[in-house]
Amino acid sequence: MTTTQTPLSPTPRSTVRRLGNRARTDRTELYRVLDAGLVCHLGVVIDDTPVVLPTGYGRIENTLYLHGSTGAATLRAATAGAPVCVTVTHVDGIVYARSVFHHSMNYRSAVVHGPARPVTDDDERLAGLRAIVEHLAPGSWGHARLPTTKEMAATAVLAVDLTEASLKVRTGPPIDDDADVADPSYWAGVLPVRTGFGTPQACPLLPPDTLAPPHVTGR
Amino acid sequence: MTTTQTPLSPTPRSTVRRLGNRARTDRTELYRVLDAGLVCHLGVVIDDTPVVLPTGYGRIENTLYLHGSTGAATLRAATAGAPVCVTVTHVDGIVYARSVFHHSMNYRSAVVHGPARPVTDDDERLAGLRAIVEHLAPGSWGHARLPTTKEMAATAVLAVDLTEASLKVRTGPPIDDDADVADPSYWAGVLPVRTGFGTPQACPLLPPDTLAPPHVTGR
Repeated sequence: MTTTQTPLSPTPRSTVRRLGNRARTDRTELYRVLDAGLVCHLGVVIDDTPVVLPTGYGRIENTLYLHGSTGAATLRAATAGAPVCVTVTHVDGIVYARSVFHHSMNYRSAVVHGPARPVTDDDERLAGLRAIVEHLAPGSWGHARLPTTKEMAATAVLAVDLTEASLKVRTGPPIDDDADVADPSYWAGVLPVRTGFGTPQACPLLPPDTLAPPHVTGR
Repeated sequence: MTTTQTPLSPTPRSTVRRLGNRARTDRTELYRVLDAGLVCHLGVVIDDTPVVLPTGYGRIENTLYLHGSTGAATLRAATAGAPVCVTVTHVDGIVYARSVFHHSMNYRSAVVHGPARPVTDDDERLAGLRAIVEHLAPGSWGHARLPTTKEMAATAVLAVDLTEASLKVRTGPPIDDDADVADPSYWAGVLPVRTGFGTPQACPLLPPDTLAPPHVTGR
């Protein structure tokens, strides 16, 4: 369905073929893309209208977990068993081509389709939340205070099976038309995009000179 | 609709109030968030199912422009006048709270709702594409070869009005329960997340030692 759309350049079929098939089926690579993301974009349909919101997530084996307030409309829509789409995208580089038409982006994007299963089993709820917290902040489960019964009750946990997930990846230099490649007046290449962490900023309410723990500083 | 959902921690109403209202209405700030993004997540409904895909975009005043291959299913769905949701999210920091429940993320997220208007006027189509290219790769319009008639014909351009766009922002340290703040055994703070550009990688088909132009190196 999406093989003819790239993130940033309109890509007719002939170009898709030249670029190779961007869809990947390897599970390991899918998991790597999901595990490396910080935020996903959760899409649900509310009153026939798409709603796309950023949210946290975690993974346990072939299941993706989401959570949210029991009062949130998007979560309510999803917990009604409606289909959801969860997309995690890494932008790896800006692809400068010799023509504006072939400008593109290097990226990895995992797209998860499926019904969202409301998690009701207490053990799985806790495991799902742990996966979400450890995905966001590895090491926090065990350092920070764990959820109370009241906090658990305020939290909706959803599970989405990853069997129907797909992965699209673009890597490498621009693919230009031969006539443009022959013209030396155009520069072409890739500007890498990098995401990293800065220096931890301690909460102002901590005692002065409190050191950040290794699970934060070592990230 | 979404004021009770935060990206990463389940947030009951009482907490939303304590955090302040994350919804912002300032146009300048909305534009700044949109203009600083590299990729948006476009949500459409196809066969009653949400589809969320990363794609490029550009902005001219109060209009967002999207494009894609005329053959892409998501674009076809949008060009049929169906409602779309376009979301641009910046992750600014991981919020380590004293409880896992209050873990969160500092972020800026613009959410654009509306019908996607197929752009048919040639001048607006070209202006929209220019905005998209200049958003992705500032300076490329004028350096790279401009679109041919055939390339223009292969490209669908969509416009979404920004009047109904909303902005949510979370900044600052974690908001913890008083009892947790009183316990010095927990570290709390924010780990900043930064996105930047690396060193340009020249296309292997360029003559050796071709220098990248200032609009790439100076980014």
